[in-house]
Amino acid sequence: MFSQTDFVHMQRALTLAARGLYTTDPNPRVGCVLVKDGEVIGEGFTQPAGQDHAEIRALKDARSRGNDPRGATAYVTLEPCSHFGRTPPCANALIEAKVARVIAAMEDPNPQVSGRGLGMLRNAGIDVRCGLLANEAGELNIGFVSRMTRGRPWVRMKIAASLDGRTGLPSGESQWITGEAARADGHAWRARASAVLTGIGTVKEDNPRMTVRAVETPRQPRRVLIDSKLEVPPDAHILAGPPTLIFCASLDERNAERAEALRARGAEIVALANEHGKVDLPGMLKELAERGVNELHVEAGYKLNGSLLREGCVDELLVYLAPTLLGANSLSMVNVLAPDSLEQRMRFEFHQVERIGTDVRILARLTPAQPSH
Amino acid sequence: MFSQTDFVHMQRALTLAARGLYTTDPNPRVGCVLVKDGEVIGEGFTQPAGQDHAEIRALKDARSRGNDPRGATAYVTLEPCSHFGRTPPCANALIEAKVARVIAAMEDPNPQVSGRGLGMLRNAGIDVRCGLLANEAGELNIGFVSRMTRGRPWVRMKIAASLDGRTGLPSGESQWITGEAARADGHAWRARASAVLTGIGTVKEDNPRMTVRAVETPRQPRRVLIDSKLEVPPDAHILAGPPTLIFCASLDERNAERAEALRARGAEIVALANEHGKVDLPGMLKELAERGVNELHVEAGYKLNGSLLREGCVDELLVYLAPTLLGANSLSMVNVLAPDSLEQRMRFEFHQVERIGTDVRILARLTPAQPSH
Repeated sequence: MFSQTDFVHMQRALTLAARGLYTTDPNPRVGCVLVKDGEVIGEGFTQPAGQDHAEIRALKDARSRGNDPRGATAYVTLEPCSHFGRTPPCANALIEAKVARVIAAMEDPNPQVSGRGLGMLRNAGIDVRCGLLANEAGELNIGFVSRMTRGRPWVRMKIAASLDGRTGLPSGESQWITGEAARADGHAWRARASAVLTGIGTVKEDNPRMTVRAVETPRQPRRVLIDSKLEVPPDAHILAGPPTLIFCASLDERNAERAEALRARGAEIVALANEHGKVDLPGMLKELAERGVNELHVEAGYKLNGSLLREGCVDELLVYLAPTLLGANSLSMVNVLAPDSLEQRMRFEFHQVERIGTDVRILARLTPAQPSH
Repeated sequence: MFSQTDFVHMQRALTLAARGLYTTDPNPRVGCVLVKDGEVIGEGFTQPAGQDHAEIRALKDARSRGNDPRGATAYVTLEPCSHFGRTPPCANALIEAKVARVIAAMEDPNPQVSGRGLGMLRNAGIDVRCGLLANEAGELNIGFVSRMTRGRPWVRMKIAASLDGRTGLPSGESQWITGEAARADGHAWRARASAVLTGIGTVKEDNPRMTVRAVETPRQPRRVLIDSKLEVPPDAHILAGPPTLIFCASLDERNAERAEALRARGAEIVALANEHGKVDLPGMLKELAERGVNELHVEAGYKLNGSLLREGCVDELLVYLAPTLLGANSLSMVNVLAPDSLEQRMRFEFHQVERIGTDVRILARLTPAQPSH
């Protein structure tokens, strides 16, 4: 169904799409390659929200190079959009440009619009095929797919630990267990996320900024803080710079003054409680999805990590293991209790294992059959 | 100094040497390739102790194929021996065969004989060079090198754990955290060891056989048990089959009867106490080296693992991590305490990281600068 040449061009389109890794948010990362008579005549990838999508960029690129897209094949890593959003539909642009063929890696994950863009193209007489390198395309937009299909972000929990699974000394000292390369790599994962989440425990302990610094990015992810009792000090680093989103359990007269002080620092506060008077974590994920969060990057401590896992709010672990043993009395990764039997254990699969500098990085995904804990 | 052809032949010699991985013990694994006029005319690797070394096998192989080794180049992964052991010196055999060149990967690690074999060859007018693929050759005989240069075996501690570093549930349930592929791989590491060591805690808990079963081997490693108070039941599985070596803290009238019962089961008992009335672990390593143990494979529990680490009796960790989290109340890998600061942590380096089935295998070596803990 697809030729070797098709693979090569779609691979190129994926490479282009990945250039938008830090910038397209909340839109998906999409790449487009226009090929005519065996030659690449135009290329593009999706620009920051409100600007051109990949297809428009590729058409403009072709024309600026004096190439006529009529009769070309368009390789796109995602089904072209069919609706007027902040930009006109890309399917229209391809039809108007009179391309002959469109090969898409995958359909739009939003079940309400999925297939419409391809349908528009087909109705216009364009030869349309879909499914080439679909897994790779899906990985690139794993958060967008999650938001569209599940109404929640893809949640990636980052943990830096010793080989015996300890994240800090009994004193709390944890800087730095892993090496510089792992820390920079961790910032690259922050940079691709729509939002970075931490908890009040980590703020009290480390007072982190939660910004991307070790890699260059034109866009900082939104910062999200879980702080049930609104205890964050107004001068905490996490409140400096662009507005931080704080989830607390309730807003009432008792914390009205604190809330006001935090708002004065630019914070936005959302109250969302579960029946135990803590922040409703699944509800928070839904709220974040409604705000366009595709990938949520979690860097929290033992307690919040445990709560997120137990409440089924984690999709994958991004674990950096350092070549040391910190001992049985050091801090554990997550506040979860042992299952009653090994048969009932949480099951992940190791999706990626890489060496990063002197450390090892393991991306472990919760297996889908998993009931939430 | 070495040509591409030399690399190819030495690589072949290393491949041959590795065929003796389970069998040459306590001798080193050595391979030999004889090359004449660009053709391989004979190959061999060291046979079980008392039988032919690699060089003799290669010479016999050449002659049996009607090839005359005169004027050939011999590629050997270790300096040919110069002394009469259970077999006559290989250096003599190469001289008598009138080979023209000998290329050795490394010198004999025993400082008392190192260089003698090569010297004999040089004195006989043979062109001798050394150092080609020395690291690879050294890895293959890491235990032999350790015994010859440090008077102790190379100690490899195997641990199977969850991603959060837990080796079992609070109940003790630990079978099976890792998958079948990892368990078979673990048996392959047992098979290459001279001896497999465990502690009385593991015997009481799991009553293991500590034999190699998941891979085929013509030789079972010696089994060694640390049992300070001689508590092992005479019907324990570890005592079945070939004699097990038991280290206890003392032999006296109080345990004479138990010792007798264990000896009746074929066990050999050595008393070796430290000042705390426990088995003297460094002393045990010395004793094992004197008995020809090159690689010592440790599969023990939390306590003995911790004691071995604290007493500087571990060279590398062979850790299998399974894709699960067992929780903060599950069993820890090793009974060591946190350092006072991260600066003072134990330092390893990740020597190898591999995926084994659904698990990850990490070989972590204690860095040489490390003071013992």
